[in-house]
Amino acid sequence: MIDLNQMRQKILTADLDQMLTFAEAFRPIDLAESLEKLKAEEQLRLMELLPPVVAAEILEFLEPLVQYKILHNLDVNLTSQILNELPSDVVADMMLAIHRYQADKLLDLLPDDYRKRLQTLMTFPEETAGSLATIDYIAAPGQWTMDTTLEHIRKVGREAEITAYIYVTGMKGELLGVVSLKKIILADPATLLQEIADEPISVPATMGQEETAELLSRYDWVALPVVDAQQRLIGVVTVDDLIDVMQEEATEDIQMLGGSQPLQGTYFKSSVFHLYRKRIIWLLILFVAEAYTGTVLRHYEDTLTEVISLAFFIPLLIGTGGNTGTQTVSTLVRALAVGEVHFRDLFRVIRKELVTGIMTGSTIFIIAYLRAWMLGVEMNVGLVVGLTAMIIVLWASFVAAILPLVLHKLKADPAVISGPFITTLVDGTGLIIYFTVARILLHL
Amino acid sequence: MIDLNQMRQKILTADLDQMLTFAEAFRPIDLAESLEKLKAEEQLRLMELLPPVVAAEILEFLEPLVQYKILHNLDVNLTSQILNELPSDVVADMMLAIHRYQADKLLDLLPDDYRKRLQTLMTFPEETAGSLATIDYIAAPGQWTMDTTLEHIRKVGREAEITAYIYVTGMKGELLGVVSLKKIILADPATLLQEIADEPISVPATMGQEETAELLSRYDWVALPVVDAQQRLIGVVTVDDLIDVMQEEATEDIQMLGGSQPLQGTYFKSSVFHLYRKRIIWLLILFVAEAYTGTVLRHYEDTLTEVISLAFFIPLLIGTGGNTGTQTVSTLVRALAVGEVHFRDLFRVIRKELVTGIMTGSTIFIIAYLRAWMLGVEMNVGLVVGLTAMIIVLWASFVAAILPLVLHKLKADPAVISGPFITTLVDGTGLIIYFTVARILLHL
Repeated sequence: MIDLNQMRQKILTADLDQMLTFAEAFRPIDLAESLEKLKAEEQLRLMELLPPVVAAEILEFLEPLVQYKILHNLDVNLTSQILNELPSDVVADMMLAIHRYQADKLLDLLPDDYRKRLQTLMTFPEETAGSLATIDYIAAPGQWTMDTTLEHIRKVGREAEITAYIYVTGMKGELLGVVSLKKIILADPATLLQEIADEPISVPATMGQEETAELLSRYDWVALPVVDAQQRLIGVVTVDDLIDVMQEEATEDIQMLGGSQPLQGTYFKSSVFHLYRKRIIWLLILFVAEAYTGTVLRHYEDTLTEVISLAFFIPLLIGTGGNTGTQTVSTLVRALAVGEVHFRDLFRVIRKELVTGIMTGSTIFIIAYLRAWMLGVEMNVGLVVGLTAMIIVLWASFVAAILPLVLHKLKADPAVISGPFITTLVDGTGLIIYFTVARILLHL
Repeated sequence: MIDLNQMRQKILTADLDQMLTFAEAFRPIDLAESLEKLKAEEQLRLMELLPPVVAAEILEFLEPLVQYKILHNLDVNLTSQILNELPSDVVADMMLAIHRYQADKLLDLLPDDYRKRLQTLMTFPEETAGSLATIDYIAAPGQWTMDTTLEHIRKVGREAEITAYIYVTGMKGELLGVVSLKKIILADPATLLQEIADEPISVPATMGQEETAELLSRYDWVALPVVDAQQRLIGVVTVDDLIDVMQEEATEDIQMLGGSQPLQGTYFKSSVFHLYRKRIIWLLILFVAEAYTGTVLRHYEDTLTEVISLAFFIPLLIGTGGNTGTQTVSTLVRALAVGEVHFRDLFRVIRKELVTGIMTGSTIFIIAYLRAWMLGVEMNVGLVVGLTAMIIVLWASFVAAILPLVLHKLKADPAVISGPFITTLVDGTGLIIYFTVARILLHL
């Protein structure tokens, strides 16, 4: 943990050497988190004190709008220096977060060539491979020898974020091959890049970030080149960014499965009003949907008045249906998200869930019958409860098996079928099953 | 997609060149998935045909027991060659999956030094950093120059899995520093490793894999050195293994939040009986817990008989409580898992959830009152329903805010507090709230 007071002290004394020693004792992300807690003028003072390259390393971990607020208030020369040190994907994200007019002013501080390539990155919609890509990679023509390549790396390598791979490109910038730095070092110095280059696997800039992350994780790579429609290399996405994507997607799925819309930021950064908005929508939809259980129950008012003990088991029966449905839905939504299950597996999934449902349903039947007996109700009411429990378990398994797969097929997010959603769905239908079984078995 | 028949054909013709061209057109993991679908003798034939280094690349992606089955049936010389080409963490996993006696026989095929280091890796319990580590990294003394180091890399680099970093170790193997390959290439050839080495961040071999993955993802690294209690370097964990850990942990959390015990393998690899076992435990626990709603309802039988319309709203009210609880629980369990929330935040979380609960509760109050009015029940029953809905929402928010944090503090997995769990908990207590409010407001 960084001592904030100590940090303030260092800023006040303004001794560069002391500040550097202090900064070097910590990681940039830790320094960034502490910096966020400082007052605005302290933040600026710290940025001015540190060398631009160190300042950029810290700035990288702040939110785009915070980055802009700081850069905007610094001397224009310093802003330009820090801007040039920041990774290009970070700069692109910041530019997209601020007003067009503000972004243009900042872009003017960058060298022409860099600015143009950055503007290409900025054209891709959010959540695509293109929007995550960095342009700080090293490309080289295939005719270069290992020696020439290494010399080039020595010249430009300090600026590059991706150095594990060198990308071989053709005359028009089209991606022709990939060579790992390890291979370059191991090869004979006179070898040409094209002789040892591997066939590149690239993704189109428009590919969704989730799919890109899946690809990278499947093949255990640390970086993936991103190309445009003409197969020209326009950037590289790195494993650290894709890890963030995977974690965010899992968080979103969990929040959605919990019956809420996904939050935009972290828990504490979300305001109470934001939490309210994300939750109330589904709560109301489900409330209105659940309200029809009232209609169902009123429909069976006579049956209920006749055998009031039937009411005792309502929460138990619909609760069990909801639990079964939630189990199945969450397993399947996750399996769909990580690509273990596809729509073409629909019948396999239904069969698997139904067989499992028969097994769990039978177990529940026995326990439900015993429970009814323990509550001291008539034995045929016990039979009604046990049988209903079993049918509801089967019904819930069936519905929960189908819905996520169909939604996935329709290109909707299957996580919309949340636990609360399936529970609500099974509640009303479960009651109909319950009273139908009751009327038949009890001859009402 | 790989054409299985074409693959079989290539195996039958047994032309090495053709087989190699075929294999090179695909990625090892894709070949591994196809290989799994072949008959045992075809699998062996394929392994014999390919050069050991290619065979090892494919074998790497199979399950430990499948790996063993194949290796066990190959000629002992070939087994030994493939074994030496496999990444050390893969070999260790396989050794741990098979019988001690079988493992010893395989270990005898490895060079002495390698075997000893491998056996060290094998001593660490599952799900720790040590169990994930590979020993195929490059270490060097700090007194080496860049030139000497590069020469060494050229000699041993082909065997190494981790080449992005060179680890500087002392006389006793203690970890002194880390130097990236990029830095080695950029530095002056006469520089000594110790002059440019960075302070290493390492993890103890006993650290949990989840915590290790969090650390790596926080600092955007691609590899983390693992040390023993004496700070001696014993292995390196790589980002690809930790991505798998993160994905598995997210899957487990989702399955647990869905009210099931986590599955051991993927959905389709889990047998129906395995699914049954993982689900029935929680289904039964929740069924028995839910059964007390029957006791509560029987307790209020008189009230219910007097005002039968109260029964209409039971599913709606307890359903809404469950939905609210599920929303809160899933958000918090995930926030705990990714380290956004800690136990020390308990009061902040409770306050945040209660304020949000007051907002959602008030909205629900209005809608519930309207719903009761639409169902045509007496207005004071409507008031009972609206007021109960609001209190239940608040109550569910409160319980769902506390439980995951307390469980986390007690070092238990907070995901045990699943949606179905909180729903069940709120069902019974919600009924007590309902009938208490009803008795007071309706003067029963």
